[in-house]
Amino acid sequence: MNKQIILLPGDGVGKEIMEAAKVVLNTVASEFGHRFTFHQHAIGGDAIDQYGTPLPEDTIKACHNADAVLLGAVGGSKWDSLPAHLRPEKGLLGIRKSLGLFANLRPIKGFAPLLHASPLKEEVVKGNDIMIIRELTGGLYFGKPSERRDNGNAVVDTLSYQRSEMERIIDKAFQTARLRSNHLTSVDKANVLESSRLWREIVNEKQQDYPDVTVEHLLVDAAAMKLITQPTQFDVIVTENLFGDILSDEASVLTGSLGMLPSASIRTDGVGLYEPVHGSAPDIAGKGIANPLGMILSAALMLKHSFQMEVEAAEIEEAVQQCLEQGYHTADLKIAGGKQVSTKEITEIVVENL
Amino acid sequence: MNKQIILLPGDGVGKEIMEAAKVVLNTVASEFGHRFTFHQHAIGGDAIDQYGTPLPEDTIKACHNADAVLLGAVGGSKWDSLPAHLRPEKGLLGIRKSLGLFANLRPIKGFAPLLHASPLKEEVVKGNDIMIIRELTGGLYFGKPSERRDNGNAVVDTLSYQRSEMERIIDKAFQTARLRSNHLTSVDKANVLESSRLWREIVNEKQQDYPDVTVEHLLVDAAAMKLITQPTQFDVIVTENLFGDILSDEASVLTGSLGMLPSASIRTDGVGLYEPVHGSAPDIAGKGIANPLGMILSAALMLKHSFQMEVEAAEIEEAVQQCLEQGYHTADLKIAGGKQVSTKEITEIVVENL
Ligand SMILES: CC(C)[C@H](C(=O)O)[C@@H](O)C(=O)O
Ligand SMILES: CC(C)[C@H](C(=O)O)[C@@H](O)C(=O)O
Repeated sequence: MNKQIILLPGDGVGKEIMEAAKVVLNTVASEFGHRFTFHQHAIGGDAIDQYGTPLPEDTIKACHNADAVLLGAVGGSKWDSLPAHLRPEKGLLGIRKSLGLFANLRPIKGFAPLLHASPLKEEVVKGNDIMIIRELTGGLYFGKPSERRDNGNAVVDTLSYQRSEMERIIDKAFQTARLRSNHLTSVDKANVLESSRLWREIVNEKQQDYPDVTVEHLLVDAAAMKLITQPTQFDVIVTENLFGDILSDEASVLTGSLGMLPSASIRTDGVGLYEPVHGSAPDIAGKGIANPLGMILSAALMLKHSFQMEVEAAEIEEAVQQCLEQGYHTADLKIAGGKQVSTKEITEIVVENL
Repeated sequence: MNKQIILLPGDGVGKEIMEAAKVVLNTVASEFGHRFTFHQHAIGGDAIDQYGTPLPEDTIKACHNADAVLLGAVGGSKWDSLPAHLRPEKGLLGIRKSLGLFANLRPIKGFAPLLHASPLKEEVVKGNDIMIIRELTGGLYFGKPSERRDNGNAVVDTLSYQRSEMERIIDKAFQTARLRSNHLTSVDKANVLESSRLWREIVNEKQQDYPDVTVEHLLVDAAAMKLITQPTQFDVIVTENLFGDILSDEASVLTGSLGMLPSASIRTDGVGLYEPVHGSAPDIAGKGIANPLGMILSAALMLKHSFQMEVEAAEIEEAVQQCLEQGYHTADLKIAGGKQVSTKEITEIVVENL
């Protein structure tokens, strides 16, 4: 297969880890006879520095014509004092919205050799495997009005959703539950928010279409507790944008290794943007020590969700797993009796394992 | 001192634990020569059953004339199918708003004999002592509009704040930080929400008035992670209503014993409502096995925050601590080599320790 892939390295360690993902993807391409064509564009602080905007038109256009997008990371204190519309994050929010990537998939699954680094007791996290599905283009992130009022003496943000926006993400969640263990946890704040009450109604309506899937409703505050007390009780979780932001980051600590976690932001036709969960880590940028495995696993998600290359994706995932089992790790991780290596070295080891 | 205290036992285990708090308060009163007069009123599902509304006028009036209010718990699946304005939680939200209780204090501090029940590793939670200060009468909880639109095909909720509402809670937080270790963490989502940007501005402005307090700004998603990975790095946390709801419940798991945690909801003149963090637990209601210690510790918070009875409050806290050290616990807790006792028995032990 022939695929056009846009690379948006962004800020901090973005460039280094993107390079690693490219190396891995090229290996997969030659092994399986695919052709991946890469086009690199600017986003975030990098784009601000070069073009004065976190999301240049050129980048948007390229992404719209691509089969998939890989993103490194955006942000850094360097741009923190800029006005809101000129901050690196606006680039990320803008490209999600522009491409209509309404479904954010955040698989939370630890690697056995790293589980010891979890702040949770081993017996609590053992076997933990959660898929968080977060609505990504609605809610408080994009609702209008979002403004100061009354001479700056008041402020409003708006949590707004179309029924259709809720329906499509909830459908996606039911479908995902079917591919896993047929259990869906829907998280809302229906005892307070009208939007949550509509959300819950739609989940209950949709359940008629998926009678094989069992549904549990959980309030967001209760979910924030249960994720820590009984993480293995969850399988697929679906929730709106801001709750998903908070809960998916909270859940990421279960695995003990934020640097390993990938994410996918997709829409119905399969076009998607793939990025690691970790940030741009400006403090270690350029030192060649960043952990590229979250980025590499994000590339694997791309193969799976955008290109239907299940086998290729699984091979990358196994190569990463093997690499950890062989004891290799970057500076952010620890493996007893293991060997700390650089970004380049760990990438080579993954490639050898392919 | 002579104090009028309103008791709102509410639903589920509310009645049993309220009875326990009363016994303890009466003991303190006779020991210290105070006079506490109790008036019991209905709220939540109990009020719905009796009066057809979760917050009768009579209850509101009584609370407005009182020195402080103790609340047990509200809610239960029995009332889940009622329309939103007739749900037990509306009673709780209504009384907070009506009394203007803008500051919710949630101390998160584990008891050594119970820490083993935390899902977190002991070395992660050891020494953990956090005070979460949550804004309680603004934000998405009360913002208008909050409604269906477009024939039910769309929905909005509104996150709205007055500058003055932010100022008073942030002042409270700085003052609280001064009484502890002079460190304040302010949590917001300033990279997305306009309300968070105003919040952050006000925190920075206010810091000029409290130069002895150091301030850290943290995004809510990062805070949700750090609460689990490095809980002992926090001292006082201040945040808006919904973030506070989620983070305070999340933080409660650190201690390993939700049943022990008290909360205070207060306003500037000291009038306050005090309730345990746990819910109404309808499954064990009426069995005489509920844990009354969260309620008893809430009564201690009342003595401290509403009545300036620091010594009396400390005495209750020590009596509870002793009781656990002696190995006594209710069915929801475990202490190795300890003895499980009933609601009544554990209350008597606390009283003996006073
Ligand atoms: C950078 C920020 C705007 C973003 C979000 O809140 O969506 C990030 O936290 C994420 O989860 O991808
Ligand atoms: C019952 C509910 C409305 C309430 C809230 O969200 O404030 C509760 O979760 C709490 O934290 O006291």
